[in-house]
Amino acid sequence: MAVYTPVSDQELAAFLADYEIGRAVSFKGIAEGVENSNYFLLTDQGPHILTLYEKRVAPEDLPYFLGLMEHLARRGLDCPTPIHGRDGAVLRTLCGRPAAITSFLSGVWPLRPTPAHCAPLGEALAKMHVAGLDYPARRENALSVAGWRALFAQSEARADEVAPGLALELAAELEELAGRWPGDLPEGVIHADLFPDNVFFDREKLSGLIDFYFACNDFLAYDIAICLNAWCFEPDASFNVTKARLMLNAYRKVRPCSAAELDALPLLARGAALRFLLTRLYDWLNQVDGAMVKPKDPMEYIKKLRFHRAVEGPGAYGIT
Amino acid sequence: MAVYTPVSDQELAAFLADYEIGRAVSFKGIAEGVENSNYFLLTDQGPHILTLYEKRVAPEDLPYFLGLMEHLARRGLDCPTPIHGRDGAVLRTLCGRPAAITSFLSGVWPLRPTPAHCAPLGEALAKMHVAGLDYPARRENALSVAGWRALFAQSEARADEVAPGLALELAAELEELAGRWPGDLPEGVIHADLFPDNVFFDREKLSGLIDFYFACNDFLAYDIAICLNAWCFEPDASFNVTKARLMLNAYRKVRPCSAAELDALPLLARGAALRFLLTRLYDWLNQVDGAMVKPKDPMEYIKKLRFHRAVEGPGAYGIT
Repeated sequence: MAVYTPVSDQELAAFLADYEIGRAVSFKGIAEGVENSNYFLLTDQGPHILTLYEKRVAPEDLPYFLGLMEHLARRGLDCPTPIHGRDGAVLRTLCGRPAAITSFLSGVWPLRPTPAHCAPLGEALAKMHVAGLDYPARRENALSVAGWRALFAQSEARADEVAPGLALELAAELEELAGRWPGDLPEGVIHADLFPDNVFFDREKLSGLIDFYFACNDFLAYDIAICLNAWCFEPDASFNVTKARLMLNAYRKVRPCSAAELDALPLLARGAALRFLLTRLYDWLNQVDGAMVKPKDPMEYIKKLRFHRAVEGPGAYGIT
Repeated sequence: MAVYTPVSDQELAAFLADYEIGRAVSFKGIAEGVENSNYFLLTDQGPHILTLYEKRVAPEDLPYFLGLMEHLARRGLDCPTPIHGRDGAVLRTLCGRPAAITSFLSGVWPLRPTPAHCAPLGEALAKMHVAGLDYPARRENALSVAGWRALFAQSEARADEVAPGLALELAAELEELAGRWPGDLPEGVIHADLFPDNVFFDREKLSGLIDFYFACNDFLAYDIAICLNAWCFEPDASFNVTKARLMLNAYRKVRPCSAAELDALPLLARGAALRFLLTRLYDWLNQVDGAMVKPKDPMEYIKKLRFHRAVEGPGAYGIT
């Protein structure tokens, strides 16, 4: 739930004067997204999304994100595309925050993903990877192996408050992942946060991907590993191999994976689980009084991490 | 900010099957309203609002509220009107909550109301009062004099935590208001919560009123008194008599007020200030950990209450 920066009708009208999209007919804060303030903006020309970028997004990264969305949309991917102002710019300032208007994407995200969602997801992820190959800008993944150490250091001393023994378990995991992390898998632009709330569907047809504000350059297979964590576990923490198989098969039809990529999946999936575990752990231990976002339970990702640690190979994900 | 009850795409699709408004094209929680869960629902036939009624709304009151909206819309007032399902019903159940779909109202609410908003506001309020005169259902105002005692009793012991001496001041105020509260002013349906976030404008043209979930039968002039509190004070707590004059003059052009109503305004305005003060005080003293709504500062209404207590007569509101 997120509207951190209120925008007055006067400020909105002044902001819209810099665009050629008409005037506001409706304007409502959207109770979604935990990083930025998002508004549904209906003008007399149609629906749009207005985003104000809040503290967690580094302003210097915004051209990468907005440029990527425009690049992917031009390559035919269904995703929001930034609207250019009269001066050509897509990024400006509103209420003291960097802000941009993007096109509106229809569809509804699946609260409880079913197997029917997973093949379209895999296909869209692969298409995104292919479409991003010639995106010229570059952004390091701040939340990959190197970043995990710093993140863990901020929670290590109190990690056992969440589960006894957790600090030791994570320290060992971090050590092993750092030592065995691959160095030579195919790279490209990854979404890095492709959870169900970032994938819209029109019934079972995928209508688009949103929220590219964690996108970066990294192993493409790491994005698959994130989706294995985000889409293929049931609420009771059991792994649904049918979902994984559907997703991976659909992905590989669009972008075939090398044997090295497939072999690396269990390790990458452990890393992805650790990455979300560490940010959740930090948010859990550093809850802000009066914050409007309830932190997510880190235990969910401890279970996922342990699952991936125990698998014998990529066959566990339905790959044959 | 409010989405207390998440609704899955499957649950939504099943719910929409009971209506003839098409299927969901977009569905987004709205970060507005503190009582209910509101969703923007775009179907292939156009925009709607889906509301799930949460704990604070008594289910037995919903037919009064929904019936009122339909009544007022039929009388030509710009307000959301409930959509009837295939079976004719406007109220049904979704995710275990009472739920209804209403028509979508365009416009933007004014974050910082200006004098230009106040005449249209007064006119719309009077039109609502006139249109409601023949609404046959009746609902007592639970938050009028009798209700204040019970509300105050829940906060009295801790009121001085907010401001030293507050408990005594409020006890005396309550005593005086109870003793002097009028018994014979013109009654009808009042909105009872017509704050700026419940009034939409298309630039300076009022496009409609929303959120009738506090509506009840009471003195019509009490609704005016609420608007004096909600619209005519500046952020520094000073009273803007220009706004009050514009609002009252526009109101009286549509529905002339009796001398008794005007004379009662200072007392009614004290009562209205006390009413919002008491609910804010309660919410302030009973903050829920992890709640997604930040309680509003009760001190704002102490200042307003003191202003109304000090005025000599309705002339203080610009009435000549």
